[in-house]
Amino acid sequence: MKEESRKDEIINTAAKLFKEKGYSAVTMRDIATAMGIKAASLYNHISSKQEILKEIIISLAEEFTQGMEFIKSSNFSSIEKLKKIVSLHISITSQNTYGMASLNNDWMHLEEQLPYYLKLRSNYENEFRKILKEGIKKNEIANSDVEVMLFSMLSTLRSLYIWIPKKEDLNSEELSNNLSHVLINGINK
Amino acid sequence: MKEESRKDEIINTAAKLFKEKGYSAVTMRDIATAMGIKAASLYNHISSKQEILKEIIISLAEEFTQGMEFIKSSNFSSIEKLKKIVSLHISITSQNTYGMASLNNDWMHLEEQLPYYLKLRSNYENEFRKILKEGIKKNEIANSDVEVMLFSMLSTLRSLYIWIPKKEDLNSEELSNNLSHVLINGINK
Repeated sequence: MKEESRKDEIINTAAKLFKEKGYSAVTMRDIATAMGIKAASLYNHISSKQEILKEIIISLAEEFTQGMEFIKSSNFSSIEKLKKIVSLHISITSQNTYGMASLNNDWMHLEEQLPYYLKLRSNYENEFRKILKEGIKKNEIANSDVEVMLFSMLSTLRSLYIWIPKKEDLNSEELSNNLSHVLINGINK
Repeated sequence: MKEESRKDEIINTAAKLFKEKGYSAVTMRDIATAMGIKAASLYNHISSKQEILKEIIISLAEEFTQGMEFIKSSNFSSIEKLKKIVSLHISITSQNTYGMASLNNDWMHLEEQLPYYLKLRSNYENEFRKILKEGIKKNEIANSDVEVMLFSMLSTLRSLYIWIPKKEDLNSEELSNNLSHVLINGINK
């Protein structure tokens, strides 16, 4: 257990530094310094900066994949499915804003895991697109340009890490309701 | 004139490299290599990587400021003003996707110009917020959470650089209409 939590501490410290300075500019030494330990000790827990990046990004991408699997196989209406997607993003992002910053800004620095990450992302977007198309078919969703709708919703959801206040009093449910309302009903009177 | 266009070439090459590798990872030597010239020649045109970043970001931020000034002082309805903002983002972004990537990803690397940039950004957000509040007051815009509406619209508009296809056949007007429709009316049937 101690082993695991030290590794988590490395990953969390790294995610914070990646956000502040960008992945390329951060060294293993920087991570060690921020933790007040020697660089050599890092290597008892993790083999490289690349492994840290992989741990941050792939675990988040898999969380999104699992969430989407659940939503997809549910019996919700298309609009309900979209609301669940909004909640999924708010829930994952509010629990790990630094990790989400890294996912958004540093994914292109993945090496071996890049194709796997791209596959997960592309599958996620495809499932999202299917929900929109199904909603149009069932007359639940306006017959607008699917790609514009997908882009607009995803851009907002992917930007939550910038915006979600780090306050502990964030009310995820309220935010989820408000954001779902704006994304689904727009801002028109 | 020749002087000016070489400087523009440096700025455009740098913006492309910043997007690909991140600002921190790019050197003046990289920029020179990408242009097929010697690093020393760069300094005849521009004093530092920081000056390049300033040229990219501040000029874009000022374009947005001017666009907002025009929209703000117009007699359009609140909804029309929002549509003009959507057009403004599409127009500036489609003309300079690399620059917009740099604006979004590298602004925090500004040094002397950082406070000025932050002032422009904050003013822009304030004017946007005022338009939403005015619209609610005039009963043109739904009485939802202003910050959620602002975040949602701005996140989408700020992500256009990722999404706008680099195809030359981009129909800005059509995209502007479609995106305005989704942002204002939502996706609900």
